[in-house]
Amino acid sequence: MATTLFDYEPRDWRTDAEGTVRFALVGVGWWTTDYVLPAIESVGHCEATAVVSSSTEKTARVREEYETVEYGLSYDELASGEAADAYDAVYVCTPNATHLEHVEAAARNGKAVLCEKPMEATVERARALVDACEEHDVPLMVAYRMHTEPAVRRARAMVRDGVIGEPMLVHGENSQPLLEMIEDPDQWRLDPDLTGYGTSVMDLGIYPLNTARFVLDADPVQVQSTMASNHEAFDEVPDEVATFSVVFDDGTHAACSSSQNAHDHTRLEIVGTEGRIEFEPAFHMETSLTVARDGTTVDVETEQVDQMAEEFEYFAQQVLAGEPLHADGEHGLLDMKTVAAIHDAAESGETVDVE
Amino acid sequence: MATTLFDYEPRDWRTDAEGTVRFALVGVGWWTTDYVLPAIESVGHCEATAVVSSSTEKTARVREEYETVEYGLSYDELASGEAADAYDAVYVCTPNATHLEHVEAAARNGKAVLCEKPMEATVERARALVDACEEHDVPLMVAYRMHTEPAVRRARAMVRDGVIGEPMLVHGENSQPLLEMIEDPDQWRLDPDLTGYGTSVMDLGIYPLNTARFVLDADPVQVQSTMASNHEAFDEVPDEVATFSVVFDDGTHAACSSSQNAHDHTRLEIVGTEGRIEFEPAFHMETSLTVARDGTTVDVETEQVDQMAEEFEYFAQQVLAGEPLHADGEHGLLDMKTVAAIHDAAESGETVDVE
Repeated sequence: MATTLFDYEPRDWRTDAEGTVRFALVGVGWWTTDYVLPAIESVGHCEATAVVSSSTEKTARVREEYETVEYGLSYDELASGEAADAYDAVYVCTPNATHLEHVEAAARNGKAVLCEKPMEATVERARALVDACEEHDVPLMVAYRMHTEPAVRRARAMVRDGVIGEPMLVHGENSQPLLEMIEDPDQWRLDPDLTGYGTSVMDLGIYPLNTARFVLDADPVQVQSTMASNHEAFDEVPDEVATFSVVFDDGTHAACSSSQNAHDHTRLEIVGTEGRIEFEPAFHMETSLTVARDGTTVDVETEQVDQMAEEFEYFAQQVLAGEPLHADGEHGLLDMKTVAAIHDAAESGETVDVE
Repeated sequence: MATTLFDYEPRDWRTDAEGTVRFALVGVGWWTTDYVLPAIESVGHCEATAVVSSSTEKTARVREEYETVEYGLSYDELASGEAADAYDAVYVCTPNATHLEHVEAAARNGKAVLCEKPMEATVERARALVDACEEHDVPLMVAYRMHTEPAVRRARAMVRDGVIGEPMLVHGENSQPLLEMIEDPDQWRLDPDLTGYGTSVMDLGIYPLNTARFVLDADPVQVQSTMASNHEAFDEVPDEVATFSVVFDDGTHAACSSSQNAHDHTRLEIVGTEGRIEFEPAFHMETSLTVARDGTTVDVETEQVDQMAEEFEYFAQQVLAGEPLHADGEHGLLDMKTVAAIHDAAESGETVDVE
């Protein structure tokens, strides 16, 4: 067990690739300005050379702050291939239902794609997104930042090595007070045309779902769900609050919840026949890991990394080396199918297979 | 908030009743010998005067150790009213499917009844148990020890006082390695004739279910569930592992799990719009309470009580004072209906109303 605790593969993606991937960042919200731009600046192999937004004010502000960012483009300019020679890859961080058009534009121009999750608003559009990248033979990665987290990677190794015995149960929670964080009732996460099936499972529930997939190395096969929206701001989306259960193909059963109108809290737990792994907080940029087995509880402090920096560096190195990317489009597509099944299940009241 | 933290009603059931309730303890397993007999000895108003078992060896051992215990009876002797003058109440702690016959015997003899949960093996038998007590006009209480726990009572007061805002989500877990605790694959908890609908929800899942009911002061209206049994010892019961969701009549959604073949772990959490209450461990004899709100997290250390001592003293005082008992038969019956609905839901794959 000591070996497992202190010896794992935190950065097994390191390649000896040389060169730099130049990024066009599509969507200039707080995530891009507060997390992505500083992350790109902090690592090798990456450079932000363009930003794309409908707001020239936002692109001008970024260009002023980051001297590598030479171009401020509109979405139309992105679509028409303006300044396409200035970047090698696009990072897409816009409302869910707009990912497809930006990825299609990137693919047409032969650019590698790093797309935020959830991939799109619906399974059909996510499938079209994957197809566009395949058609134009460009690399596609879905930006699951938890896959880069040392605590999560360590937990995955522990589960694989049998530290908690056979995994039996997963508990996952992700809730936040969206209306306190963004005080606009007309925000896109509450608009079904932009968010897709709903708000809390798409935006938050996907974290316990996908992180459990990654830690268990298993995929969902069946779901159930209950959802409700009572607050008027959630009139157009079904899941102000949601619970969902997931049965994985390794036999593990998960009980999860998500809410966009609750106290800020994230947690993921895997209970096995011999022990237990817990992340709390789980999905914030800091992750705390606890492992219990045989009456012993161990708090594991892992190196605190910048998850977005890890993500961009991994993406860049793999692209430069011509190596496959994880999470790929099919991986992200399965999450989309699972989220769609969760919404189907809540609406029908029935168990739904993930197909 | 300070008021809520330090000022609550830990023992609001105290009456000025005088006298003693003499108990016949029905079933002499480890729970009765390790927890119940010492608890009764430690509090006022209670005395154990008889023990009932199919094993004369067990009853003899108890009579030797506790001088108040005058009678060792067989189940047939209990049924025929032998030594009925020596006790005023019965405590029933036998396999689920045998509760009814013992409660019927007690009721026929005019004895007050304290019955372990789950009340019986099926809703129908639980209903018959309630009917028997009503017919003979004897008091009936179901032994939900968590209702006596200061941490739980305090959380209930906090929720009522709005400390966490409006409750939105509940997370509940209760798992244990049954085959390590009792190394007999033929034990009654794995025998559907004795346990009832199943093993993990009946025996363990009932804790988060009922404690959430108590803390929220709300009742379940709708459930979903997934269950599986893979280990051969669980061949006859459907729920070696189970997840279940519960929608309560106050709109709160719960995501719960239980397993009789997993690492020992118990936890209950209520997430509201403004804060969060967590018990971890939750359902062991010690309960730890954490309350979070507005960026502040408070670990609340409550007095550590003997839950069984509280339970017996409450029962005795209420019986002596002629006051109503909580949890009463109808309260316990709703849990039975909910557990039955959870099993129906798992079997059908559909959402089931609790009726």
